[in-house]
Amino acid sequence: MKYYPRPESGLDIHDVNLAVEAAFREHGMGNVQMPPKVYISFPNGDFRTMPAYIPALQLAGIKCVNVHPANPEKGLPTVMALTTILDIETGLPLAILNATGLTDLRTGAAGAIATRYLAGKRSVTVGLVGTGRQAAAQLEAISREIDVVGVRAWSRKDVSAKKFAERFSRFDCRTGTLPFVCDCDVIVTTTPSRTPILMDEWVHEGTHINAIGADAPGKEELDPEILKRAMVIVDDPVQAIHSGEINVPIREGRFSPEEIAGTLGDVVLGRKKRRDNEEITIFDSTGLAIQDLAIASVAMKNGNYLELEFP
Amino acid sequence: MKYYPRPESGLDIHDVNLAVEAAFREHGMGNVQMPPKVYISFPNGDFRTMPAYIPALQLAGIKCVNVHPANPEKGLPTVMALTTILDIETGLPLAILNATGLTDLRTGAAGAIATRYLAGKRSVTVGLVGTGRQAAAQLEAISREIDVVGVRAWSRKDVSAKKFAERFSRFDCRTGTLPFVCDCDVIVTTTPSRTPILMDEWVHEGTHINAIGADAPGKEELDPEILKRAMVIVDDPVQAIHSGEINVPIREGRFSPEEIAGTLGDVVLGRKKRRDNEEITIFDSTGLAIQDLAIASVAMKNGNYLELEFP
Repeated sequence: MKYYPRPESGLDIHDVNLAVEAAFREHGMGNVQMPPKVYISFPNGDFRTMPAYIPALQLAGIKCVNVHPANPEKGLPTVMALTTILDIETGLPLAILNATGLTDLRTGAAGAIATRYLAGKRSVTVGLVGTGRQAAAQLEAISREIDVVGVRAWSRKDVSAKKFAERFSRFDCRTGTLPFVCDCDVIVTTTPSRTPILMDEWVHEGTHINAIGADAPGKEELDPEILKRAMVIVDDPVQAIHSGEINVPIREGRFSPEEIAGTLGDVVLGRKKRRDNEEITIFDSTGLAIQDLAIASVAMKNGNYLELEFP
Repeated sequence: MKYYPRPESGLDIHDVNLAVEAAFREHGMGNVQMPPKVYISFPNGDFRTMPAYIPALQLAGIKCVNVHPANPEKGLPTVMALTTILDIETGLPLAILNATGLTDLRTGAAGAIATRYLAGKRSVTVGLVGTGRQAAAQLEAISREIDVVGVRAWSRKDVSAKKFAERFSRFDCRTGTLPFVCDCDVIVTTTPSRTPILMDEWVHEGTHINAIGADAPGKEELDPEILKRAMVIVDDPVQAIHSGEINVPIREGRFSPEEIAGTLGDVVLGRKKRRDNEEITIFDSTGLAIQDLAIASVAMKNGNYLELEFP
């Protein structure tokens, strides 16, 4: 059994994107086992277990991941994760991976795949609402799939946006107000907001939105009016209804599960596509166990591991 | 983060029994989070994920365990397991334990606790139906809790029973027919049987039975008539109805969930006890995630670990 302490280092982002795309293709064909995430609640956080099996890719395993919002004060990441990959023939654990960094990248990959298929153009400007680790992961992953010709960034803290813009100056990254940032071909929202911060009137026709931030009941970034104008694609209907961008609008009766246009798997399979240049498209990402398996399979080719005695 | 490759070595069985008893006490009080096991099916096996949290013991984590019946032909155990223990305050994984050996011991511990509370006597003869690893674990654990003054063993293969008897000669262990083995104060069944092998007429009044073997739908070791004469205690009602000794009789309408007398937690709390010396008592064990947490907490005091880089 191998242990990978830093499996994200040196990963080729395009390889990751392709592996995650392959996993969504299997998901779209209904060829995966992926039971709903199981939650355990702690006084100041939680942990989730995410098992899955993708027969066609000969991949099975489980990610365990916590969310403890006060961790940064203690010098620890809010989210930490371990992925265990099993041999399908024998059930033997083949590898345990520190999936803390991988979790960022596999979420970025889903956003990049959605953008490649759903953005109306091959060459885009990207508006980032939120400039944390996930914003960086999205931008890196998207720019490996299509041409990014300009970036606009907004953060609740101006200094964070400025730092981000410096780091990504190679994309001609500028900071500004939310309406300024929304005037882009692709918008990526990655905040922990619990009230809409992206207003309907700022989003012009033809925009593609990766709605990444909402990943728990009660979280919401988009004015629900945007959903009504858009084709809404989810990663997984059960998870999206439970904890994705659409969870609050559904609970409030402002959106209904029947209005979901399809899954990212449907998009990858060509069953769902943007109707015309005017349509707004939204990808509602909650994060799937199959993404974790996909990125683990790429990372395990990396070579940087310790051999552990087992069984 | 620590990795324990051989956490079962040098463990004090009595300490394990006490830790497992404490976990069942919390379970009986309704003070644990333990979602149902999640199953993933492979072509020739499966894997199960078992998360849990015991607030009073400050213990949280998850066991992942496979069952691949053809593994012995490949030189691997049928069942292999990993337990991950998390820090409750931060969600940081504190330790990963090879739980392959621990799984045997924690099941033995539950049987020992049940026997200590439910057997009518402090000094007993033990009849073992099945003489594999779990039979040994049960005998070792029981003998740490009450006086074992004689053992009778039966196996489908006579040679296995004889080998077992040699290994446990310190208990004056004898082999014989099933009726001979059932003529004991405590009977422990640990076979993978799918049809009853323990007949009603062989079980005399006052016997305590640990029914361990049935741990999946379709498995069954006891003549359902025995259930009708007995006080039936389960580890967890949901799991027992799904996959314990009572699963087949319930499906066939020969036993009903309402006939379950209580849980091992109820027994530990003194809410349920043997009525008199004549009553037959049955402990239906399926194996709970809280047992895995309990034994991990003991094993982590063991000291024999590797330090792994995380996060």
